[in-house]
Amino acid sequence: MALNKQPYRGTRDFFPKDKRVRDYLFSIMTKTAESFGYESYDGPLLEEVELYKAKSGEELINEQIYSFTDRGERFVAIRPEMTPTLARMVAQVHRESSKPLRWFSIPNLMRYEKPQRGRVREHWQLNCDVFGAPGRMGEVEILQMAVELFQNYGANQSHFEILLNDRAIVDTVFITLMESTPEQSHRLYKIVDKAKKVNEEAIVKMVKEVGLNSKAEELFYSYLKLKTFDDVQSYLTKHNQLESASQFGLFVEQIQKLGLSDFITYDPTIVRGLDYYTGIVFEIFDKHPDNRRALCGGGAYANLLQIFNEDPLPGVGFGLGDVTLKDFLEVHKLLPNLDNPTNDIFITFQEDDGLDASMKLAHSLRKENLKVVTSLEAIKFKKVFPTADKKGVRFVTLMGSEELSKNQIQLKNLATKEQHTLDLNDLQTLIKIIKA
Amino acid sequence: MALNKQPYRGTRDFFPKDKRVRDYLFSIMTKTAESFGYESYDGPLLEEVELYKAKSGEELINEQIYSFTDRGERFVAIRPEMTPTLARMVAQVHRESSKPLRWFSIPNLMRYEKPQRGRVREHWQLNCDVFGAPGRMGEVEILQMAVELFQNYGANQSHFEILLNDRAIVDTVFITLMESTPEQSHRLYKIVDKAKKVNEEAIVKMVKEVGLNSKAEELFYSYLKLKTFDDVQSYLTKHNQLESASQFGLFVEQIQKLGLSDFITYDPTIVRGLDYYTGIVFEIFDKHPDNRRALCGGGAYANLLQIFNEDPLPGVGFGLGDVTLKDFLEVHKLLPNLDNPTNDIFITFQEDDGLDASMKLAHSLRKENLKVVTSLEAIKFKKVFPTADKKGVRFVTLMGSEELSKNQIQLKNLATKEQHTLDLNDLQTLIKIIKA
Repeated sequence: MALNKQPYRGTRDFFPKDKRVRDYLFSIMTKTAESFGYESYDGPLLEEVELYKAKSGEELINEQIYSFTDRGERFVAIRPEMTPTLARMVAQVHRESSKPLRWFSIPNLMRYEKPQRGRVREHWQLNCDVFGAPGRMGEVEILQMAVELFQNYGANQSHFEILLNDRAIVDTVFITLMESTPEQSHRLYKIVDKAKKVNEEAIVKMVKEVGLNSKAEELFYSYLKLKTFDDVQSYLTKHNQLESASQFGLFVEQIQKLGLSDFITYDPTIVRGLDYYTGIVFEIFDKHPDNRRALCGGGAYANLLQIFNEDPLPGVGFGLGDVTLKDFLEVHKLLPNLDNPTNDIFITFQEDDGLDASMKLAHSLRKENLKVVTSLEAIKFKKVFPTADKKGVRFVTLMGSEELSKNQIQLKNLATKEQHTLDLNDLQTLIKIIKA
Repeated sequence: MALNKQPYRGTRDFFPKDKRVRDYLFSIMTKTAESFGYESYDGPLLEEVELYKAKSGEELINEQIYSFTDRGERFVAIRPEMTPTLARMVAQVHRESSKPLRWFSIPNLMRYEKPQRGRVREHWQLNCDVFGAPGRMGEVEILQMAVELFQNYGANQSHFEILLNDRAIVDTVFITLMESTPEQSHRLYKIVDKAKKVNEEAIVKMVKEVGLNSKAEELFYSYLKLKTFDDVQSYLTKHNQLESASQFGLFVEQIQKLGLSDFITYDPTIVRGLDYYTGIVFEIFDKHPDNRRALCGGGAYANLLQIFNEDPLPGVGFGLGDVTLKDFLEVHKLLPNLDNPTNDIFITFQEDDGLDASMKLAHSLRKENLKVVTSLEAIKFKKVFPTADKKGVRFVTLMGSEELSKNQIQLKNLATKEQHTLDLNDLQTLIKIIKA
């Protein structure tokens, strides 16, 4: 029986055309991260499952993880996310490193998901993180970088928006103002996380079950109505949380000065689950009606190194997956046409005897850092140009019997249709024309 | 108990410094492959184990493979090599693709190895393959690319050599001349593969066990003595294998014309195991006495698509791993110094009030495609330059109280020590100096 030619469920074959799209996505990620002085890192494909348990808890890691026991009885997993690896690596070096530490990576990750639109089993994810930045500047920088990243893909305010909250504020409201127990607070987080997906009635029912007093309930519902940074400031001030208000004010002032507030809206329902965040949390949403969903999320965390018994080191980061990003760029028609590769020149010959001269020419042009496609056998004139188009070349050389006898070639510029008859001993003229 | 900070056995953490080395290795691979018009592809991290069994047989895949059963009862493996994935992908598209098909990839692969020098469990491997090239031109092109790849790292004939054989010749000798049975031929392949690792006595003993007649034994021992392309031609001619001699002659003529024979030596012991090769087989060896081993191997194969019930399509390819390559470049001192990143400018301020102007300046310079490192808080003058060195910047800006009051900065070129006092409203002058 013949083998299946399709890739494993939920994974993708990247044929050259698909790979060019991925390379384009990654090149803008890399360019943006490096424009902020972030340095690229990478970690292993496998980590011990203990690491993921320590970060996310037993419950979260079991369902979606690709885990197995190796031949040395180690229980390992294919990385489902990069943050635990990042934490492990930062824990090794943070004491000797000058701060802030600015790192980025674009690893492949695997999750055992039911494949559907925007969800696959193997995907790539840009991870940008800054550690040890002063005050709230790490949060500001990460937001600035996220905005510039989308701008570098050609996107603007009409295409995306950032919905943002601050976990410190949520804790102030739930714990200080509402005086919730840790158990109640935990349940409130879950309600907030679901708030946009269910109707008001369902929320009321869930809140009832938490068993808050009426004053706490009122505080909770008015919290859920906050819509702007000013709303938040007024709410905190009204309830005498001046320190919290002033802290958040400093952050808002910075993002306003940098013009980021045009992209960012306060949203009390953004909490990013029960995750390890302690400061701002945010999600970037596609504004297109056909693709209305989160593209990217991130936030600030203080205690990531705790699992290694290391002192707290404040960090801020975000992650952006390749699948949702590609859908976003496609729905907004922001993806360049990458159907064909780009090459400099296609070297052809029309008589068998042209092989040696053509191979020699190709070799010389490669030394000039040109991308050279060769025909390895004589090809007919009329077949040259369709192939040249598919290979995305700018120039073509031809060598028929006349050129061969004179040690010449015809050089044709495909854009301008200009054609030159050139001597093969005069490489300099050829190179000059191609590099012009 | 605190978690272990070390990576999983046999895998590596790529801190920024290590990642820069890897990026450098990959950039030369990509540049070389693209200079030959090869297009980048990638496949899934996991494949069904059936695929590896079909290509390599039960025996080879069991010991070294990371395999497990997924939740949907599929028996899958982390890819230990790229060729089966490549074959699967080519089988999908080869009928509609114009030939030759030239593809390359740099995947991460995992093998369950005992970690030692040059051997790790997770490594990256350049794979270059050409399908459907006419005559022997695919073999010639792959060898040419392998040589240029090493040259692009700065290596030359004193650093590496290519040892080459042709499986068609081996088969001619074993089957046509020696009249071995398939079983005997199989055993002879294994002996040849070991020939360099054992002494003559051991070879004689192994050959005895194959049970050849004395004429066949003599043919075998004289085969093992072949040292040059001329030797091979004489041997084949002497034994009336004229077609085989002429076929190989065409190939040798081409590599001589391209100057490749300076790098390539015939070696009868290179057969690349029992693998799927049908034409040339080669290995690239490090010539350094401290690192005398194969860096890279490849060859030509005709029947890779058979497992998918597809018509034969001749292919030639080679693979080069990152670990052995890095050892090679290190032992020959060919690796550039990548201790520090490269950035364009470090923007600093010496008074707290300088933050806003500095952030604004950084933002403007990023729009000019510059790599900008910012200090997110006021830093002392004497701390600026050590940090600038570590960040590999070419320029530094300073803003003390005097500059702040005049809306100016000091711009310092770290190489020339030139310093300019510039107005922050005059960005054009600043950009001109940095881009000069």
